[in-house]
Amino acid sequence: MVEVVGTAPTSAMFITKFVYRHSWKSNIYNIKLYFKDSIYLLEMALSEQQKKEILEQQAQKNITRRVISPELEKILYEAQPVLDHGFVRVIDYMGDDSSIVQAARVSYGKGTKKVSTDSGLIKYLMRHRHSTPFEMCEIKYHVKLPIFVARQWIRHRTANVNEYSARYSILDKEFYLPSKENLAAQSTSNRQGRGETINGKQADNILELLKKDAEQTYADYELMLNEKYDGTKINENNKGLARELARMNLTLNTYTQWYWKTDLLNLLNFLSLRADSHAQYEIRAYADVMIESLKKWVPITYEAFMDYRIGVLEISAKGLKVIGSFLNGTNISYKDSGLGKREWNELMTKLKLNNKTIK
Amino acid sequence: MVEVVGTAPTSAMFITKFVYRHSWKSNIYNIKLYFKDSIYLLEMALSEQQKKEILEQQAQKNITRRVISPELEKILYEAQPVLDHGFVRVIDYMGDDSSIVQAARVSYGKGTKKVSTDSGLIKYLMRHRHSTPFEMCEIKYHVKLPIFVARQWIRHRTANVNEYSARYSILDKEFYLPSKENLAAQSTSNRQGRGETINGKQADNILELLKKDAEQTYADYELMLNEKYDGTKINENNKGLARELARMNLTLNTYTQWYWKTDLLNLLNFLSLRADSHAQYEIRAYADVMIESLKKWVPITYEAFMDYRIGVLEISAKGLKVIGSFLNGTNISYKDSGLGKREWNELMTKLKLNNKTIK
Amino acid sequence: MVEVVGTAPTSAMFITKFVYRHSWKSNIYNIKLYFKDSIYLLEMALSEQQKKEILEQQAQKNITRRVISPELEKILYEAQPVLDHGFVRVIDYMGDDSSIVQAARVSYGKGTKKVSTDSGLIKYLMRHRHSTPFEMCEIKYHVKLPIFVARQWIRHRTANVNEYSARYSILDKEFYLPSKENLAAQSTSNRQGRGETINGKQADNILELLKKDAEQTYADYELMLNEKYDGTKINENNKGLARELARMNLTLNTYTQWYWKTDLLNLLNFLSLRADSHAQYEIRAYADVMIESLKKWVPITYEAFMDYRIGVLEISAKGLKVIGSFLNGTNISYKDSGLGKREWNELMTKLKLNNKTIK
Amino acid sequence: MVEVVGTAPTSAMFITKFVYRHSWKSNIYNIKLYFKDSIYLLEMALSEQQKKEILEQQAQKNITRRVISPELEKILYEAQPVLDHGFVRVIDYMGDDSSIVQAARVSYGKGTKKVSTDSGLIKYLMRHRHSTPFEMCEIKYHVKLPIFVARQWIRHRTANVNEYSARYSILDKEFYLPSKENLAAQSTSNRQGRGETINGKQADNILELLKKDAEQTYADYELMLNEKYDGTKINENNKGLARELARMNLTLNTYTQWYWKTDLLNLLNFLSLRADSHAQYEIRAYADVMIESLKKWVPITYEAFMDYRIGVLEISAKGLKVIGSFLNGTNISYKDSGLGKREWNELMTKLKLNNKTIK
Repeated sequence: MVEVVGTAPTSAMFITKFVYRHSWKSNIYNIKLYFKDSIYLLEMALSEQQKKEILEQQAQKNITRRVISPELEKILYEAQPVLDHGFVRVIDYMGDDSSIVQAARVSYGKGTKKVSTDSGLIKYLMRHRHSTPFEMCEIKYHVKLPIFVARQWIRHRTANVNEYSARYSILDKEFYLPSKENLAAQSTSNRQGRGETINGKQADNILELLKKDAEQTYADYELMLNEKYDGTKINENNKGLARELARMNLTLNTYTQWYWKTDLLNLLNFLSLRADSHAQYEIRAYADVMIESLKKWVPITYEAFMDYRIGVLEISAKGLKVIGSFLNGTNISYKDSGLGKREWNELMTKLKLNNKTIK
Repeated sequence: MVEVVGTAPTSAMFITKFVYRHSWKSNIYNIKLYFKDSIYLLEMALSEQQKKEILEQQAQKNITRRVISPELEKILYEAQPVLDHGFVRVIDYMGDDSSIVQAARVSYGKGTKKVSTDSGLIKYLMRHRHSTPFEMCEIKYHVKLPIFVARQWIRHRTANVNEYSARYSILDKEFYLPSKENLAAQSTSNRQGRGETINGKQADNILELLKKDAEQTYADYELMLNEKYDGTKINENNKGLARELARMNLTLNTYTQWYWKTDLLNLLNFLSLRADSHAQYEIRAYADVMIESLKKWVPITYEAFMDYRIGVLEISAKGLKVIGSFLNGTNISYKDSGLGKREWNELMTKLKLNNKTIK
Repeated sequence: MVEVVGTAPTSAMFITKFVYRHSWKSNIYNIKLYFKDSIYLLEMALSEQQKKEILEQQAQKNITRRVISPELEKILYEAQPVLDHGFVRVIDYMGDDSSIVQAARVSYGKGTKKVSTDSGLIKYLMRHRHSTPFEMCEIKYHVKLPIFVARQWIRHRTANVNEYSARYSILDKEFYLPSKENLAAQSTSNRQGRGETINGKQADNILELLKKDAEQTYADYELMLNEKYDGTKINENNKGLARELARMNLTLNTYTQWYWKTDLLNLLNFLSLRADSHAQYEIRAYADVMIESLKKWVPITYEAFMDYRIGVLEISAKGLKVIGSFLNGTNISYKDSGLGKREWNELMTKLKLNNKTIK
Repeated sequence: MVEVVGTAPTSAMFITKFVYRHSWKSNIYNIKLYFKDSIYLLEMALSEQQKKEILEQQAQKNITRRVISPELEKILYEAQPVLDHGFVRVIDYMGDDSSIVQAARVSYGKGTKKVSTDSGLIKYLMRHRHSTPFEMCEIKYHVKLPIFVARQWIRHRTANVNEYSARYSILDKEFYLPSKENLAAQSTSNRQGRGETINGKQADNILELLKKDAEQTYADYELMLNEKYDGTKINENNKGLARELARMNLTLNTYTQWYWKTDLLNLLNFLSLRADSHAQYEIRAYADVMIESLKKWVPITYEAFMDYRIGVLEISAKGLKVIGSFLNGTNISYKDSGLGKREWNELMTKLKLNNKTIK
């Protein structure tokens, strides 16, 4: 077998050309600046070659009898920057809001005719946690992300994944370094949360350590492979260590990439957990960008999701009694409520009765 | 809320109009005759209204940047007849052969460049049972099928399903009656198989029983609902029994329908089990029609599937020793092979050494 | 191969002996009367042989280093009656409340030490919808249930199932007939619900129809098989129709049975949907009995489940604003709430502000 | 809330005590030497405290009516060493060989009686790839493994996992260093394989690099956390970086641990892929130890698995024709076979016709 000379421009090529070409240091061309909530996201660099490939993918004009999502078509294949070197690209999709309605009407037959509009039906389905109609839409992303984020992400098991294999190929020389405003101290109240921002000299030191160790371990990765990231051999007399072994020397902030495909229901589950304020900032950054694609893809579902999943409060049987007592004037106290302290305080905060919280 | 007056033509409408309109007796217009292996499939009837709706769906011409599968586009939405009143329609799909290649190249990076063609790569993946690249394509079917077939089908858990609900709506008056050549006696050698065909008077009697009982139980279903299949009330002074209860009186050959969506890998698993000669004829009839859609959708994958999944023989360690002994002339006997009788005979048959089978 | 003469008493034997032995008419011995909420459940009949087998299973005394659940051990293998001929038996289990705690502490390490008790930790996990620790326990049921109930049940895909196969064997002559108080009319307000009870002559007629059709279709099933339920041949000159075909003549209230195994998390999901008041009564009857086994198995989890899953109210962002306005005295009206009518009324009802509901 | 003073000995405690106590350098006590195929596995160290906890777990003697697996009971909770610091412990299980038989007999009813023995039935099920009966058994492992191995392992989605969280707690100072005989060069013929062993000076250099980088990045992890692995604070005036951030500085050979629970069918799938010669050595080392536990747990299934899954050869339709031609003397040549070169050579090798392989 021989090396392929001319192949059609596919995003597969786009991937393989990442290897050897792009170093951490040469990230100087960004394709798109991205502002979100006044936070300036760091630059993601794509080579001229990659930009060309994306443009070629986007230039496709195929005629189909399938339903399309016009707003999503506009950003198809585009690399949306996330963190310092990551991105999210929508690569393919199937169905739109009407597909959910179609499936629900198959299930309920004439029964659904009473719900007068598609929008009303989707809201109804979301509010009552009907799940199967939302499984009738599918989406596929191409994502570049740090390995420690990938390790959280992969826990969502109901998705299809093809990850770049470091057994086969050499990983890019790209690492995540937090921006300074994201360098937070360990929270003192929450075992898994972040507390105050770390500033000044200590912040500089931390960033310095992260950068130094990433560079050092990558340089030693090259040494063990006996090959530089640009493909040049280091020592002609040596063999290179097997890739599947050498990779173990890399740090968890090294970037990897994958194709990730899931149905709409499981995408909503992913987003409700990972766009939540308790999620680690670094995965939330991805979820935020993906919510934008959700909005373009299925705008009615997006609205219902924001109302009935993201903004929802779950109140336990005991909590409901407390609210009832406030409404009828009997005003149960914390002591008599049967609630734990944390649950009581969460409820008071949600009800904007901050003066009733206790310590 | 009020009844919807004008709604866009979707296949959802197509479904709801089945109700009340189509009786078992009036199946006189078929949209397409279908010949397979010289077996003339029975007629499936669609109303003028349904034919119109399918035509409207097929008239869509949308422009997309996604990849398309030209041959599959041609039969999109079309109702392929199966059994006497069933059908299979491809409603939507995502990806084509190139999507598998794309995903594999993401995983293996530069490593896959050595496989010179897309076709070679897909064959390689199929032969070595690589699974995840095949998960990157998705397809959605609309299927009308007898309940006893649906009960086998639903055991494939890695799919998304929206079934017509008999809690909400009244089931069509349509039942599966086998054609005479499919009326087989219980096999005497295989506990789950069919033996000789049943002919003559006994066959007539059996078909008569099936028809009579289906008609009787459906008539009583209407009586309990206090409503005929065409929506007319039976006794103005009576209430109708709840649909979720009345349905229990129907027989297992009553037709139901669903939207069924799965990824390509799981479709291949489904087809390899259900198009197999050990599968019950009635579900095999569906699998056969779906294999035709597979061929149109992903022709390269279809070829690899036929070679490396459908036509494959698994030989155990002991069986391999037997073949080795035949090739080197030592000719192990059944007695010394360590194989069970059934396994020995299966192997000899596959090797076309029928004179070596034992009783 | 020959028929097995002596085999150890396993519940497998228990199953196979159901066949041929037990007719719908001979259900005269029940092993246990069961009262629930003052509803007297109908009798389930087991033969002397079956009772003996259950007793043998229960007589096992094995010594294990695994954790055990003492209360669940007491009812292991016992057939809990459900509906008229159904039952639920716990056959095996793995883990108890401490297994959830163990798994959570593995995940959170030293972090979980701050939660002072196992009970506190399980409540915390349930309230915050932590899922994976609950997956560490597993349970296996043997269930006898009508086919139309089995069709709802099987939609829970994350479980393992082995169902009695009517391709291999002949189904028991047992059918579900609702008790009179469960004969409800179709609801006029809810497309999938039940309304008022149907009484008097009409109820008698309905039960008569259900019984007659079940008996008739079963008798014809025997005719087609050319074999009675007790194994006697009907016509020595005829072949029997293949079982996989004959079964299609049976009605959906015929009983089937299966082994059903799932982890605790998915059991809770199943129970929260199927013990809900919107679930069909017939599957709710099973869920109710299974909740009893949950309580015996993992009593702490049971408590947390009742508080934070069963008794919970989900309030949308808009609904929360309404409650806030009631608490601070601004009293938003329905019109200004942004809620739909149905959602408004549900909220008022839950808050016991019935005077505020609108029509 | 306060710190727990006295808690019962559970394996949860066992875990949390790993933290702070055990350094990479102090691995001097091993609990068990383990020889496999004349390869001396490196030492795994457990503290006196951990050994005591395992002994306490093993001292449990509970009486149960469930089936037990006597050989598996003997090694329950025991830490089987894998690689240099990893281990596999069986923590819990459900069912044994008889549970598979029981489930199969439920499905097939009287039909299975013809297979005269349990062993015959299990072999039959395995050979014909019947899957659901094997899902009726469940096992739970506690595993300590390097992160790069965990990343391969987690791709098996049909399992339940609770992993030690580095968001909550600080990771142990333990890293995987390959033994010298496992330091292999990249294969020249196989993109993902290993070639010749690397020896001498180059091997020393590689091990030196791996060790140095692991120590350096861990030391900087401590610096960023402002806390040593033994819990002492480093600089009283500094805050520690959030754990969820600091962890990104660790290398992929750092050890993590998890509880991993799966059913027998999916365990077999895992083992057939990961004990295969194409699997990376480091995960194969785990699979090998787990196969030992399989053998103790379900000895009949183990035998069938070795015969019909591990030792099996899949022959394509074209390959079968080649064998046929050899047996009947027509001897098809490579050129006329329709096989690719690699497939031809694989077949000839399996048939021990090495003289027929081509270049």
